[in-house]
Amino acid sequence: MFDFWIDYPTIDERLKTVCSIIEERVTVRNKEIQDVLIDFTYSGGKMLRPALFLLFADLGDPHYKKTDQLTKIAASLEILHMATLIHDDIIDDSPLRRGRTTVQAKYGKDIAVYTGDLLFTQFFELLIDSMNGSPFLMTNAQAMKRLLLGELDQMHTRYNVNETVEEYLQSINGKTAELFWLACLEGAHFGGLSEADQQLAGEIGRDIGIAFQVFDDILDYTSDSGTLKKPVLEDLAQGVYTLPLLFAKAQAPEAFAPYLNKKDTLSVEEAKEVAALVHTYDGVQKATDFAIGYTQEALAAIDQLPDTPSRKKIRSLTELLLQRDY
Amino acid sequence: MFDFWIDYPTIDERLKTVCSIIEERVTVRNKEIQDVLIDFTYSGGKMLRPALFLLFADLGDPHYKKTDQLTKIAASLEILHMATLIHDDIIDDSPLRRGRTTVQAKYGKDIAVYTGDLLFTQFFELLIDSMNGSPFLMTNAQAMKRLLLGELDQMHTRYNVNETVEEYLQSINGKTAELFWLACLEGAHFGGLSEADQQLAGEIGRDIGIAFQVFDDILDYTSDSGTLKKPVLEDLAQGVYTLPLLFAKAQAPEAFAPYLNKKDTLSVEEAKEVAALVHTYDGVQKATDFAIGYTQEALAAIDQLPDTPSRKKIRSLTELLLQRDY
Repeated sequence: MFDFWIDYPTIDERLKTVCSIIEERVTVRNKEIQDVLIDFTYSGGKMLRPALFLLFADLGDPHYKKTDQLTKIAASLEILHMATLIHDDIIDDSPLRRGRTTVQAKYGKDIAVYTGDLLFTQFFELLIDSMNGSPFLMTNAQAMKRLLLGELDQMHTRYNVNETVEEYLQSINGKTAELFWLACLEGAHFGGLSEADQQLAGEIGRDIGIAFQVFDDILDYTSDSGTLKKPVLEDLAQGVYTLPLLFAKAQAPEAFAPYLNKKDTLSVEEAKEVAALVHTYDGVQKATDFAIGYTQEALAAIDQLPDTPSRKKIRSLTELLLQRDY
Repeated sequence: MFDFWIDYPTIDERLKTVCSIIEERVTVRNKEIQDVLIDFTYSGGKMLRPALFLLFADLGDPHYKKTDQLTKIAASLEILHMATLIHDDIIDDSPLRRGRTTVQAKYGKDIAVYTGDLLFTQFFELLIDSMNGSPFLMTNAQAMKRLLLGELDQMHTRYNVNETVEEYLQSINGKTAELFWLACLEGAHFGGLSEADQQLAGEIGRDIGIAFQVFDDILDYTSDSGTLKKPVLEDLAQGVYTLPLLFAKAQAPEAFAPYLNKKDTLSVEEAKEVAALVHTYDGVQKATDFAIGYTQEALAAIDQLPDTPSRKKIRSLTELLLQRDY
């Protein structure tokens, strides 16, 4: 089912259970919405967040773990992720996601609004179902809030030619790293790890999340659309200035200014010229180094986790994310 | 502050506290969104849901009640209501709400999507803050889901010339009555009433909610835009066929068919002709009788509640809703 997890058969197996929980939860009387959601569930996301959650939970003593609870929490993470993707695609007016037509492009914004909202309710239902009374309910609600604020940050820095690396980091910290932080912290918590290891897990998640997002942003400048499964240079066209561009622009602001000042009137041809400049001024290389730095920080922290087979898997998965070219 | 509550000074006072909690919760680092939300909070909604919640909680023994908890739960109900209004206005593409420009008309759909999402997270934060561990967390999550499904039902019966009264009822039961049911049931629960009285409270809420929505739908056919604070015949233009129309159409389907078959190409002039037909075929009168029936059912049930000063207030408020012309 998940090519990505071919070397992790137990994770692959459990992710199938996670998918079936999601499928069960998105079964609603409205057939159209249900079809949209089931289609989206199986549309080839890598399910990194639930996988990380399960791997961190595996670090703990198996006697403390309730399989059913863990699978539900894992599903809640993916459902929250799906909800934010669907609403993001409304904002981005994006035609493609995971190589398929987005919900909003296929069914319109109206359906996309409610579909995302329904997923938010299913997120909370699953959480209440699996951990009512736990302080982690609040951790989840607050993570969701920071995630949305991260998206808002990004929306508000669009076409901002003066955007700083700090602003970029604040935005990806919220919109991406927050959910990786939550997945790993929550996995360690419900796996029964010590407070100290839970904190460490959260930091590892955040580092992986930042590296993951930076690599994702690099792909916008290095992939062709067949590999990327979404339009290339999409961020640039939408005024989302990511790390490769920010690093390159710092080297030669005058080379970029005439292009960026065109804001949303930048042509496809001009976007390609900007991309070439990003390469010329080492933006891709510097962003890659930056992401490798975060990955190495994560790897060093992973080595401090309890020495179990699951730690090895977390390590190899983190290394795998370094080689992203998909 | 709230003209509507002039005869209910203690409720008026507590609704101000509810508003200040909402204001506190919508304080976010994004100034634009914050301004939108604070503006919306004070934009003259009657705050019926938190008021009903507080009135039902007042029925119980004061020794059991925690003021702080009650105020937070009251605020959560209004926040959920606000979130659904903002997302509904995206679907409806509505220019006016409460006599003011809607969030989506003023700031665009993108801001409206995230603003609604943020309110959903604040709804859950408030609930977790006030009742973590309570089974009412799940009651709230499920009510939110049914609310969204009600909205979806309405969206899917748009321009459906064969819509039935049953379909209309299912839709308003979800989109409106559900939240009134929750407010009253939850008020009775956290006010410490018996299980039986909690059920009764929920039923009263549902009856009030249905009557309230039917009166609201009648206003679309009887008000001018100055009184209504939103465009008149808006529902009709958007293919939302409500009870006055459905009752009138049942009398003379052939009179309505040529108009309704025009679907979204119906002109303003034709909409006025349809409205005249709705009056001719007693649609407004029959819908009014229908709503009065639900109000009377609610009043009879209210008389079975514990005999306290709060019961009198619930009774007079319910009667007041009968005389809606705003």
